[in-house]
Formats: sequence, structure tokens, C-alpha cells
Amino acid sequence: MQCIILANGEMEDYEKYRSLFVGSPLTICADGGTRHALALGIVPQVVVGDMDSARPEELEQLAAQDVELIKYPKEKDEMDTELALMEAVKRGATSIVLLGCSGGRLDHTLAAIQMLVPVVRQGVKVQMLAKGHRLTLATPENPVRLPGNPDTILSILPLTTRVTGITSRGVKWPLTDAVFELGKPYGVSNEVTGPEVSITVKEGILLVIEMNRKEEGECPLSM
Amino acid sequence: MQCIILANGEMEDYEKYRSLFVGSPLTICADGGTRHALALGIVPQVVVGDMDSARPEELEQLAAQDVELIKYPKEKDEMDTELALMEAVKRGATSIVLLGCSGGRLDHTLAAIQMLVPVVRQGVKVQMLAKGHRLTLATPENPVRLPGNPDTILSILPLTTRVTGITSRGVKWPLTDAVFELGKPYGVSNEVTGPEVSITVKEGILLVIEMNRKEEGECPLSM
Repeated sequence: MQCIILANGEMEDYEKYRSLFVGSPLTICADGGTRHALALGIVPQVVVGDMDSARPEELEQLAAQDVELIKYPKEKDEMDTELALMEAVKRGATSIVLLGCSGGRLDHTLAAIQMLVPVVRQGVKVQMLAKGHRLTLATPENPVRLPGNPDTILSILPLTTRVTGITSRGVKWPLTDAVFELGKPYGVSNEVTGPEVSITVKEGILLVIEMNRKEEGECPLSM
Repeated sequence: MQCIILANGEMEDYEKYRSLFVGSPLTICADGGTRHALALGIVPQVVVGDMDSARPEELEQLAAQDVELIKYPKEKDEMDTELALMEAVKRGATSIVLLGCSGGRLDHTLAAIQMLVPVVRQGVKVQMLAKGHRLTLATPENPVRLPGNPDTILSILPLTTRVTGITSRGVKWPLTDAVFELGKPYGVSNEVTGPEVSITVKEGILLVIEMNRKEEGECPLSM
């Protein structure tokens, strides 16, 4: 089952994302991400978080539409988006799309990338979409396969300190059994040349970032 | 010796950064970062990179002012900002301030953070300034000490897979000998309460992010 999570960062263009929600069975808002649901005219199934950034009138409006509100205390060890990811996994999501994680606060964006790690380790597919970027994680259990869009710039960066056995195909500079270590960003700005891109790793976690080189181009969605 | 590096990302407000250059002995532009130097009216000592993003007329203008241009081939293993960092260390920089690393491309921002790792490991202090954020790295050899600005939101995230012996003081939620692992962002949104903040680690590398909670506030500079 697919789940869409709306976090409280920026969403630059609602129209780009509208089609994602068609037929999607579960949408979860992380606290202030409710504003994106309302702007999109989407009724989420759940709102989770400490509710310090969603407006009371927004929450009332959603509660009146039978949306479940799960409120956590403000002083907690989890971030709201993390709680949303946990809720998605608990409800049986096998594929999660995270929206609204870019923009103002760089710590929030970096934390959101890190939060994907335990989700992927539970065998759930994840992708984060933001401003023409799509981020996914390649792990030993989760090889990444992407459509070979020639407008895509592809970058890979180690998320763990060391990633071994990196093999990539369908790109201008392919790798075979390569090792990436934190501090040496070898894998930035590759070009897509084949009909499909595949990235596999033997140990560690690799962050895979696709960008559309046409600023006005489609955000690279592949559900 | 202090060095300022201008990369080719966004710089949202030149005036905020102008005072940094007063008396600073070395400014290096990474390729298209030359546009920031020209906009600031600063003459850098060096421009390094493959020169695919600096405009020819910009480079001619700087060359006429005896600026050294170090050109690398386009197909290389290093990014332009990485070459600028290497050049700074080679020229004896003991403290580096990196500007122009945020904005459009998230892969570039993440790669720039990773590039700081080998620099810090050589004992050089580094900080990246971007849109009201200041990023530094805490390592076992490089404890971080920051002025206790109550307008600062402080976040710490593990950059290596595991960081041990994390001790922080001067914040609302201090830590003593804590362990952070990739995937669990415990350290986001701390508050500064003391006259000084200190962060030390025993093993691994911790990313320290300061943000000014007042959007129009000063970018937290501490040279």
C-alpha cells in the first residue's frame, strides 16, 4: 500500500503533485503539513504530531471531516515527520512518498533524509520529492531502478560512513564494485544514458538524488 | 590564516557577508563563484575549477587584475568547491569560511558538507554560511564552541554512521556521553540557554547547524 506524507516544509508547486493523490489510499500530515493538504483540497486520513504548527481552525476543519488526529506531547524524542513515517509503517505502507521536506530549514531537510533509514531497513520503499529533486536510498536489500530520463542529472552520495560494492548502470560514468567513503563526493552530476538506471550496493546506504535539468521540467515521479 | 571560499550556489544577501572580507588575506572562487566576488566588489586571489560556469568576460576581468586562474579539465574526480578547499589548505589556511553552497541543487549542498570532512581531519577549522544557517563539524580533535545567542536554534546530526561520547552544554537539552546513530535525528531544534555552547565528541563526526530564529536576524558569524 502506498502512503503520501505531507510535512511542513515548502511545496513549490501543488499542481505538479496533484496526480500523485489520485487513488492513493493513505495520506498522513505531519502537524503543519495540514496546510498543504488543505491547499491541495485533499482530505488526509491522519494528522500526527505535537500540533504546534498546524492552525487550530485547520485541525477543527479536518476533525469535522472525520480525520484522525494523533497528538503527541511537545517534548518528545521524535520529530513530527518521523512520527508520520512510523504511523505509515504501522498502517502497512509498503511505499512512502514524502512531500514538503525542503525549503527553509536545512537541519529539517537533512533530518528527514536520515529518518528514511529505519523505514528502508524495514523493507519499505521511500522517496522524497522536492523542487525538481527525487531522493531515494539504495541499500543491500533495496537496489534502486529508475527510468532512463536523459533530462535527469543523477548524483549518489554515501549516507553511511562507508558504502561498498556500488555498481551502477545506465549512466555516463558507470561504477562496478566501487567503494564510497564520507568526505569524497565522487558520485555527483552523472548523466543518464541508458533506458534504465540501476544502482546496487553490497554494504551501507547510498543516497540517490535525481534532478531534472530543465527547471520547468516535470518532477521525476515514479511510484 | 583565514580563507573565504565563494562557491557557485546562492548567496541571498551580499551585505550580510561584506564585513567578513575586511582584512581577510585569502579569497578563493570555485569557478562560477566568481560572480559573487564581482557582485561584492571583492578581488579574489585565486579562481579554481573547470571554468564551465564562470563567464569568460568575468575571468578576463579578474585575470587583468592579476588574479590567478587555475583551470582543471572538465572530466575530473573533484568538484570545483572541493578543488577550492584543497587549494585553501595547500596555501596554509587554518580557518575556512564557505559561502554560496546553498540554494538550487540539494546534491551540491550535501556534497559540500561532506567535503568539509577531509579538511577538518587535517586540523583546519571550517564553517559554511547559508541563508541564516551556520554549519560546522565537531570531531574528537575539534570540539565546537559557539557564542550563546538565545536567538539561535541549534541542531546536531550524525555525519558518520555512529557518533559516540557526545557532550553538549549551554543548551536546554544537554547531553552527556550520548551516542547518535544515522537514522535517529535526536538532536534537532535545541535551544541555546547558556552564555556559551560547547559540543564535544569522542568518536565520529557530528554536523552542528545553527540557525537564527529571526528570519531577518544576523547570520551567526563567529570567525
